[in-house]
Amino acid sequence: MAQSDTATSIIKARVVLQQCLSARLQVQPQTETSEAKYVEIGRGLVIYLCFLKEATTETADKIVKTALNILLSSNDEEKLVSVLELQGDVLIVPQATLGGTLKGKRMQYHKNIDKESGRYLYERFVKLCSEAVSKHSGKRDESREVRVLHGTYGNRQVLKIDTNGPYTHMLEF
Amino acid sequence: MAQSDTATSIIKARVVLQQCLSARLQVQPQTETSEAKYVEIGRGLVIYLCFLKEATTETADKIVKTALNILLSSNDEEKLVSVLELQGDVLIVPQATLGGTLKGKRMQYHKNIDKESGRYLYERFVKLCSEAVSKHSGKRDESREVRVLHGTYGNRQVLKIDTNGPYTHMLEF
Repeated sequence: MAQSDTATSIIKARVVLQQCLSARLQVQPQTETSEAKYVEIGRGLVIYLCFLKEATTETADKIVKTALNILLSSNDEEKLVSVLELQGDVLIVPQATLGGTLKGKRMQYHKNIDKESGRYLYERFVKLCSEAVSKHSGKRDESREVRVLHGTYGNRQVLKIDTNGPYTHMLEF
Repeated sequence: MAQSDTATSIIKARVVLQQCLSARLQVQPQTETSEAKYVEIGRGLVIYLCFLKEATTETADKIVKTALNILLSSNDEEKLVSVLELQGDVLIVPQATLGGTLKGKRMQYHKNIDKESGRYLYERFVKLCSEAVSKHSGKRDESREVRVLHGTYGNRQVLKIDTNGPYTHMLEF
């Protein structure tokens, strides 16, 4: 493994971004009495999100701002714009596995935030993201409704994604 | 961004791993005279791979060993095994975007390896991976053929993935 140990560098969150043409995420697993439930987005951005021990509300706020404004989405002219400018959809996937560090042949998750603080920050992230997107699309006076959807914190994230090139990026905060 | 700057920590490669039920990758885009070509795997592991400037053949060898032996694949009893033990398929996706670092609202790729060295290491990686998987499945004396497929280096990686939970992990070498 590389010499940059996250323990010494105070990484507070890790985020993976992928562009998509569509993506579908299970938000409630099948039970004996009900079918599984899913949410689905069209063209836009999938945000895989993991908070580590040192994460604060500031961390969450910063990630929202960065993820929505970073110039990573190809528009129809193949120019890179933000997902806000694209008016693309956003799918937020809680992904605690991203906090893992390799020890031998196993991943360990000692650096992940505790579940309750993680849930709090995740919910804040979803709320801020939705507000920012709806504020921005409100400015546009256009008919298409932009969707911000998200997974259920703590569940298995059963995901299907179709891309025109995911352009996978990893950011640490 | 976090305080760990990859410039000072000599990261040689960045890898993202996702479990899949199936994945399809374009290996040749559509032309005026021919349809686009795809490769497709079943249950197994998608390896997104990016070499940075300091990467060597040793780096490639180490990633192969790690990715194939790390205990990240859920088997039918929901026990974590390696993709080799699972006898899962492997899809290797060259993903230079993973080397990006954020500068303002744009990603920069100054730390990525040059294209020719990257191609050399990528081809070595694919070869070693294929050999390791076929050596391992040879030991098993079973009829199912395990697939190791890969994208075309330098192309846009048009990808579709279906998962039962991608369990996204990021490793640096």
